[in-house]
Amino acid sequence: MSSAKDPTKKTADQSAPPPLAGDVESQTVETGFGVAGIVRRWRREDLLKRGSLALRGLGLLFSLLAFIIIASNKHGPDWENFDKYEEYRYVLAIAILSTVYTGVQALRQVHELSTGKQQILSQRSLAFVDFFGDQIVAYLLVSAASSAVPITNRMREGTDNIFTDSSAAAISMEFLAFLALAFSALVSGYKLSSQSYV
Amino acid sequence: MSSAKDPTKKTADQSAPPPLAGDVESQTVETGFGVAGIVRRWRREDLLKRGSLALRGLGLLFSLLAFIIIASNKHGPDWENFDKYEEYRYVLAIAILSTVYTGVQALRQVHELSTGKQQILSQRSLAFVDFFGDQIVAYLLVSAASSAVPITNRMREGTDNIFTDSSAAAISMEFLAFLALAFSALVSGYKLSSQSYV
Repeated sequence: MSSAKDPTKKTADQSAPPPLAGDVESQTVETGFGVAGIVRRWRREDLLKRGSLALRGLGLLFSLLAFIIIASNKHGPDWENFDKYEEYRYVLAIAILSTVYTGVQALRQVHELSTGKQQILSQRSLAFVDFFGDQIVAYLLVSAASSAVPITNRMREGTDNIFTDSSAAAISMEFLAFLALAFSALVSGYKLSSQSYV
Repeated sequence: MSSAKDPTKKTADQSAPPPLAGDVESQTVETGFGVAGIVRRWRREDLLKRGSLALRGLGLLFSLLAFIIIASNKHGPDWENFDKYEEYRYVLAIAILSTVYTGVQALRQVHELSTGKQQILSQRSLAFVDFFGDQIVAYLLVSAASSAVPITNRMREGTDNIFTDSSAAAISMEFLAFLALAFSALVSGYKLSSQSYV
């Protein structure tokens, strides 16, 4: 088992205590050895949880802003109404969907962080739901934002008033929400791949 | 070390030989035990490589079709020209980018499969380039396809001729290329997360 200390061998982590003979379980931890490795892993998981919550919170904020801005974008009885254009209706629908999704996820995460582990689903299926949810909402957000850009561009070439400015603001908010969800999908994918099966 | 065979303990994989005492290295393989686990892992990696190549090939096919269809979409001197509209120019630009990206990746993969390992970059940085490339091209494709849908819808409400039909076909091809790249990004993400650091 080679537990004899060889002074010519230099391991990567000098501060960690050398693994004891017969302590096989600690050798299956991939990212470190012994107690130091486990503590490092806990710290990284905690950081990931907080980062994921922060990204979802940003997504919630930007989705909510997009929702409020586009839903209140009605000025007069003629063409300056968002619901006359299918692009803006799409933007509204995806903003509502993204607000609900990120809101539910952020609430669940806050509840988890404050009370400890109390989950309805198992850890593994939750990681799947997280990753695919984030990824799909990110695709929908970038699709909605992209679809509304050309008509807004064309309107702003002619006239530049509160209606077109509000539309542009809503599109920007939706794009920022997309960025938050895309990074959140990265974090969720990392969590999905690196979870321990112990 | 408990290498004595206990008949009351049933392990998950009955067909694999029991790990030998002192054979510590085989215990660090996460997905199986001994030779059977390594062979299973090789088979899965081979399947992943072929699946990734097939998805990139599909992405190349659909991107190339979108590029050809939209670039040849010029009918007459007036409004029936794709380059009069920023949406279709965006579709063309992203179709070219996606064709080049998937073509280079597919060529590299075919070369790798036929000649064995001869890579310029290291395995790890290549996995990063793969994943982020697939993901970014997927976002661009869905954005371009979405941006061109509304104007095509509006044109087809009025008139329905070869110009609008070609535009719709190019958008569909771009959407199919997006699907292929999105699944390819999933495979690349899995490869990035599960590569061995041996």
